Amino acid sequence: MTAKEPNHGAATIYHPLGPLAEFEFAQTAAILQPSWPEGTSLHFKSMVLLEPPKVELIAYLDAERNGQRPVPLARRAYVAYYIRNTDKLHEAHVNLTEAKVDRNVRMEPQCHAPNDPEETFAIEAAVVEHPKVQAELAKLHLPPGTRVVCDPWIYGSDSANKGNPKDDVRLVQCYLYARDPANPDEPDGCHYAFPLPISPVMSPVDLSLVRIDTLPTGLDNEVKPLQPMKLGPPNEYIPEAQKQLRTDLKPLRVVQPEGVSFVVDKYSDLGRTISWQKWDFKVGFNAREGMVIYDVHYDEQPLFHRLSLSDMVIPYADPRPPYHRKSAFDLGDVGVGLVANNLKLGCDCLGSIFYISGLVNDTRGRAVEVPNAMCIHEQDHGILWKHTNYRTRRGVVVRNRELVVQTILTVANYEYILAWIFNLSGDITYEVRATGILSTVPLDLELTKTKNPYGVVVHSGVLAPYHQHFFSLRIDPRIAGSGNQVVYDEAYALPRDADTNPHGTGYTVRRSQLSKSGGYDVDVSKSRVFQIINPKVRNEVNGSAVGYKIHVPPMQFLLADDESYHHRRAEFTDHNVYVTRHAPDELFSGGTFTNQSTGGTGVRSWAARGDDLEGDPVVWLNFGLNHIPRVEDFPFMPQESIKVMLRPSNFFNRNPAMDVPPSDQAINRSVLLNLNRTGCERGQNVAAQGKGSAL
Amino acid sequence: MTAKEPNHGAATIYHPLGPLAEFEFAQTAAILQPSWPEGTSLHFKSMVLLEPPKVELIAYLDAERNGQRPVPLARRAYVAYYIRNTDKLHEAHVNLTEAKVDRNVRMEPQCHAPNDPEETFAIEAAVVEHPKVQAELAKLHLPPGTRVVCDPWIYGSDSANKGNPKDDVRLVQCYLYARDPANPDEPDGCHYAFPLPISPVMSPVDLSLVRIDTLPTGLDNEVKPLQPMKLGPPNEYIPEAQKQLRTDLKPLRVVQPEGVSFVVDKYSDLGRTISWQKWDFKVGFNAREGMVIYDVHYDEQPLFHRLSLSDMVIPYADPRPPYHRKSAFDLGDVGVGLVANNLKLGCDCLGSIFYISGLVNDTRGRAVEVPNAMCIHEQDHGILWKHTNYRTRRGVVVRNRELVVQTILTVANYEYILAWIFNLSGDITYEVRATGILSTVPLDLELTKTKNPYGVVVHSGVLAPYHQHFFSLRIDPRIAGSGNQVVYDEAYALPRDADTNPHGTGYTVRRSQLSKSGGYDVDVSKSRVFQIINPKVRNEVNGSAVGYKIHVPPMQFLLADDESYHHRRAEFTDHNVYVTRHAPDELFSGGTFTNQSTGGTGVRSWAARGDDLEGDPVVWLNFGLNHIPRVEDFPFMPQESIKVMLRPSNFFNRNPAMDVPPSDQAINRSVLLNLNRTGCERGQNVAAQGKGSAL
Repeated sequence: MTAKEPNHGAATIYHPLGPLAEFEFAQTAAILQPSWPEGTSLHFKSMVLLEPPKVELIAYLDAERNGQRPVPLARRAYVAYYIRNTDKLHEAHVNLTEAKVDRNVRMEPQCHAPNDPEETFAIEAAVVEHPKVQAELAKLHLPPGTRVVCDPWIYGSDSANKGNPKDDVRLVQCYLYARDPANPDEPDGCHYAFPLPISPVMSPVDLSLVRIDTLPTGLDNEVKPLQPMKLGPPNEYIPEAQKQLRTDLKPLRVVQPEGVSFVVDKYSDLGRTISWQKWDFKVGFNAREGMVIYDVHYDEQPLFHRLSLSDMVIPYADPRPPYHRKSAFDLGDVGVGLVANNLKLGCDCLGSIFYISGLVNDTRGRAVEVPNAMCIHEQDHGILWKHTNYRTRRGVVVRNRELVVQTILTVANYEYILAWIFNLSGDITYEVRATGILSTVPLDLELTKTKNPYGVVVHSGVLAPYHQHFFSLRIDPRIAGSGNQVVYDEAYALPRDADTNPHGTGYTVRRSQLSKSGGYDVDVSKSRVFQIINPKVRNEVNGSAVGYKIHVPPMQFLLADDESYHHRRAEFTDHNVYVTRHAPDELFSGGTFTNQSTGGTGVRSWAARGDDLEGDPVVWLNFGLNHIPRVEDFPFMPQESIKVMLRPSNFFNRNPAMDVPPSDQAINRSVLLNLNRTGCERGQNVAAQGKGSAL
Repeated sequence: MTAKEPNHGAATIYHPLGPLAEFEFAQTAAILQPSWPEGTSLHFKSMVLLEPPKVELIAYLDAERNGQRPVPLARRAYVAYYIRNTDKLHEAHVNLTEAKVDRNVRMEPQCHAPNDPEETFAIEAAVVEHPKVQAELAKLHLPPGTRVVCDPWIYGSDSANKGNPKDDVRLVQCYLYARDPANPDEPDGCHYAFPLPISPVMSPVDLSLVRIDTLPTGLDNEVKPLQPMKLGPPNEYIPEAQKQLRTDLKPLRVVQPEGVSFVVDKYSDLGRTISWQKWDFKVGFNAREGMVIYDVHYDEQPLFHRLSLSDMVIPYADPRPPYHRKSAFDLGDVGVGLVANNLKLGCDCLGSIFYISGLVNDTRGRAVEVPNAMCIHEQDHGILWKHTNYRTRRGVVVRNRELVVQTILTVANYEYILAWIFNLSGDITYEVRATGILSTVPLDLELTKTKNPYGVVVHSGVLAPYHQHFFSLRIDPRIAGSGNQVVYDEAYALPRDADTNPHGTGYTVRRSQLSKSGGYDVDVSKSRVFQIINPKVRNEVNGSAVGYKIHVPPMQFLLADDESYHHRRAEFTDHNVYVTRHAPDELFSGGTFTNQSTGGTGVRSWAARGDDLEGDPVVWLNFGLNHIPRVEDFPFMPQESIKVMLRPSNFFNRNPAMDVPPSDQAINRSVLLNLNRTGCERGQNVAAQGKGSAL
């Protein structure tokens, strides 16, 4: 980085990419409130930084980077709110610099804001105590003392409410579970092992009970009258409930005796600039997207303007009402930042860890801390490259050090571990680890060993329905500056030809450029790889346009049919890559308001405009997995990892990390384990320093 | 593991899976030599353990595991050898137990054994000094003092030698390079930055020069007469040749203060049993396959009988003779064990490392040590699972500890890092990291910035041709005992139906069983996943057949056409999965003798028999990548990783690692980094023990 004054102190609060500071939450509410008659109570759903336009930001950031004094940009907040205890949703842009409301509009009645924790807890309490729910529960004849737990769920959409004004109303569907009747007071008992066949539907507006759905529990869609229910055994995950914990897993620690290799700067009250191994970038945070990466440079060369998870959706396979509505958008319906875990040293993170906390709003518009929402650390990831000259036997080996920026979110039963990973040779990897507890539904106990069409039985009387996970990553590129293009390369066989391909072995690579916005797919059979290039900047070695390749894994697209609401709403589930013309208000590939949405407001719709791709396009990477559960996924699911990689392609003039010092035992201090030569004594691994053959 | 006497001492040499011991190499040669007239000199190519049939082995291994005294099995060696200085290849089975030759046959003249290091070095020396080669080199007018380096290459096959008896002769093609003329005495100079347009073809039998091919250096197949050649600048990889090495990468160490969690037993002189976290398995080693994993059990339940890399092949895209022949089988043409690196503590391996050395034969039939050929260590691999109860905010998190068994091979310019990785929840991953230096060919200096049809220019005057990498893994399963079957599951949409799928959202999973040997493909669009099941053993929870899923990544198949010799020879490059009936002599999916092979001897041919899949099938997993080089891949290529995973699927009755203790700071001792609150001072990360918010 160029020499510059450290950015700290009060001035930095006004950095245009700084997450809303604590006082700015209060300021936002205070500026907005007078738009309404005195005494009007607002229920704030979302209060986040409204970023300045990209062109203004880049001018600001470049000036800052060049040690110039950038022209200050207005601080603005985006607000979504209800008039409290109504379904009147509004969207406002609040100008904090000028203390005025730039925009304040009532949204169409079919637009609904996400659920929030206050509502969720209120609904939980209201449901379990509701006399009508209690009456239904009584029919199950659960053992005395059984505690019932309610998981409020996003309601979803279905064709039943198409054009039906009463279904424009915001609803919450609830799934009920029991705790182990033999241990009802354990608050961390795994209630997902005891799903109950009752699903109350609630109004979050007034906490009233709308109706109670009864769930099918057989192999078809028959809904049987509630009757006394047999429960299976418990399946607890908490360690104290295990018969015996293993005692033979020895500690493994990561030690950095000379400190870490990264440096953290404040660019605003809450914003952090990370510098590591020629990389530098800014880390922001908001309630919806959680961590956001800005202004990524390598060795002072611009690469990406903004990297963010745009949305995700998890549609379920079980077609039986009400399960057909289960399709959760965990960003649009909830918010990564809002449910980000408080990361724990030595548990979620191993080694030397730097934490960044965030702020989100509560329903009164006050700032609430999300402590340790993101963690930053280095990790070793095996060998990055190696070559041994077989003539001299000299090997040169460089280990793969990575910098990880991680956050973890919990959405009711489920967890996602999200990480941006930077390495020494210019790669950026985004990793999603899906874990947590399966969303389970009740099954007649006697059907436990019968094959089920809609899922896998993971426990006695417990069905884990099939479901798909789709993630949508928004890439706002700036490869070597402005004027980026998206291309893809494919490898194809050359025709056999006596002159040019006499033995039928030849193949070549063809490049295609995307000129219109649209949806595009990877095709492994052609080694099709997308790439963001800058045609104005040429590689000094071979003259190619400099670029970054995109390695996005293939996936099965959405299985719900094209007429379904799953399909209409989940606009990022039918192509691996969408490319759109940059538009400042197009950040969320499932649309701004996904709760009970009906489609037409996301990336598929934007791409369908068929815009010419002038200026820098926005690239949306969609990836996912089809989760066919295993018994081994219960009660805790071992993580399934999916990775997307951004990799330099003729961007640098050689491997950019040839200057990384080779791995060396003097630095790494590994320990040689000796086998006792006179007899291999189990359990005695003698540790010794030094090298040698272990024969 | 069951209690048993530690296996050590002389008796264990005779374990039927023990790699050939030092004295057994000598014994093998001594038993075989008298088959020939006195004074006949044999040139040993391959000398490895000939394993007993699977059925006998399983009886032995089970008896051993049950603490019974197993019936000893004959020790036998497989030998491939020439009568020295001839092309007369023989294959022998030598019975060491009975000191007799069981089989000793002359192979067909078109069968050729791999190259060996002795030949390779002899050819290198002969080529560079050969007057005719010197005469050709002189035409290039290289700067005075330039040193020429020769990389002997496997010759490959082409349709030119089809049915032509003279081409049944074993040949070696040589590629020549210069060292940097300004630094000719640096033995580790990167000569791949200076490819020369001369390719001598040699006889390895008598080291005679067969002919000298001149290479095309333009954009087409024109071969120009040799003329004075301009060389580009050097591109060195050794650290002392870099302008400046980074100084800001701080040490990162892995420490296990209480020792490691694995135990190593000797099951023979060289064989090792590894026990770790309910896993146990045996590790063997031989010249061709390198490391072999035997008799894998988890918690005393059998899973896999034998896991091995069967072969790999790297066909090149450049169709211009002689490049059309470049297609190297690095196991069949060379041997993983023969070229396994001597792994270095703290360089190739980080943490607490146990090394296993191996033995291979030299051409005289003597044992040669391959020191530290394999390493074993534990590593942390992030979070394995996590769940936070949002009501109580209690999170339970378990980190993903892995056990890695790794080997690294160098084949001339290129390296492969191969690892079997076991984890806590029953998964086995096989990872290949491809690294090293690209195989480069000469290009007219003035074409450096011109797009090339056959590859990517990675340096001035240096073309890196496109090439594919294919790996073939042999899985000899024993899931829950004998009688395994191979099935695949697919997810497909249910038809919209007013009754059963009223909203078009439903999908289900269909299972298909493979009854005949054949080649099968993954299909991501159907979420098709193959699985090895044991239909006789049912999951106690849900009654499914117990199984292990196979996650093999999709790939672009071989681009060379079906009539090409690339295709005929590389029998594992046209399907992701081959399934064959078990046959004891079918270990190598490209055939036993791949050098100048013409096909018909590998897994495609075996599968084409259409055998009924009775008994335990053998499953061949074929995976790879199409390497479209980048400038960033030179001079050292940052590793490209490909992984295959074997994952329990309804094998266990719940997540098998629920008894792993949760991650805990008291054990893991991570370090909290504090941001200086009064101003973020760059370069000062204050380390402190403890927890807290970093806001």
